[in-house]
Amino acid sequence: MRHYRIPDETVKRLPVYLRGAVLLLKDGKKSLSSGELAGFIGASPAQIRKDFSYFGAFGTRGVGYDTPKLIKQISKILKLNKRHKAVLVGIGNLGTAIMVYTGFSIYGFSIEAAFDNDAKKIGKKINGITIEDIAKLRTIRAKKIQIAILAVTSGQAQRVAESLVNNGIKGILNFSPCRLEVPKNIKVISIDIALDMARLPYYMPKT
Amino acid sequence: MRHYRIPDETVKRLPVYLRGAVLLLKDGKKSLSSGELAGFIGASPAQIRKDFSYFGAFGTRGVGYDTPKLIKQISKILKLNKRHKAVLVGIGNLGTAIMVYTGFSIYGFSIEAAFDNDAKKIGKKINGITIEDIAKLRTIRAKKIQIAILAVTSGQAQRVAESLVNNGIKGILNFSPCRLEVPKNIKVISIDIALDMARLPYYMPKT
Repeated sequence: MRHYRIPDETVKRLPVYLRGAVLLLKDGKKSLSSGELAGFIGASPAQIRKDFSYFGAFGTRGVGYDTPKLIKQISKILKLNKRHKAVLVGIGNLGTAIMVYTGFSIYGFSIEAAFDNDAKKIGKKINGITIEDIAKLRTIRAKKIQIAILAVTSGQAQRVAESLVNNGIKGILNFSPCRLEVPKNIKVISIDIALDMARLPYYMPKT
Repeated sequence: MRHYRIPDETVKRLPVYLRGAVLLLKDGKKSLSSGELAGFIGASPAQIRKDFSYFGAFGTRGVGYDTPKLIKQISKILKLNKRHKAVLVGIGNLGTAIMVYTGFSIYGFSIEAAFDNDAKKIGKKINGITIEDIAKLRTIRAKKIQIAILAVTSGQAQRVAESLVNNGIKGILNFSPCRLEVPKNIKVISIDIALDMARLPYYMPKT
């Protein structure tokens, strides 16, 4: 259950703040001001202070926020204060790129299983994970995996999503360019790289 | 130059509205209410009405918005009312996935050139585009390409970004997990799939 009433837009920004704080702590910054964090991640200090106020993280004037404490607070709110196992389905070009992607661990995610329906891929090992037959998807339940990354084709996505939900998945990161119909208690976050690209021309100088 | 003062958060949502309106028009919806659009894309009608009011798109009570007019207005604001040529640099697993991705055309983007530094890849053709030697990157200027998609490793990203800017690129969609230092007039939008994934546990039911 959610412990706080935090606007979705703020929830979207919290991972950015978290990553910024983690990187700045690595650089030795044991405390940081909203201005320093804002400058590092490219946001506005006022927005940061407002977002932080939703969960009662108040900095000290002239000193700022205690970095480890801030990391702990944001992690707790986002429920990232424990490891999350993930399963990846669809080991095409995108799926392979995801398997070797190193950016998940900062948030405590680890890909623990990978599935495909292509006999040529099944049994292959990428980054220490053996690709398994999609027919054996039910094994994710015993592994207590609750997060899935979906990188299959649009035509397969709905069927695979249903199978994932039937096997205990509670959250799906969806890369297929289609809407998934899932029960209300299942969270789907869809990534469409074209959507981000569509904002570029707005900010580009006139030529 | 920008013609309107529109908040960045609204600019982020406009491509979602645009895609929704395009898909609904395809389904024959020649006019649509904020409620219909909201239901289709999973947003709030009030948010949509507020966002639209920034550029003076006012629906008619009981009738809603004229869909083709709405598409035209949003496209114009986002400067998507003309074709945009893009270059892709880095044809690894992710780059290959991007080359075959079909979601760009809805916004008028087309990948017109692709580069890599791997001799084994140079000369290969993917989706009609021949992969060229990164040493020949300067050819993008004659092709009037102003948008780049960067899918190289973190270690190469900064150098490639500088080379792109030197050859006329004004906007970069960056997939490398690193901060790019570019002149102020160059817009960079970075995609980090782990950031989106980091929001999932917040919305997942307690177990």
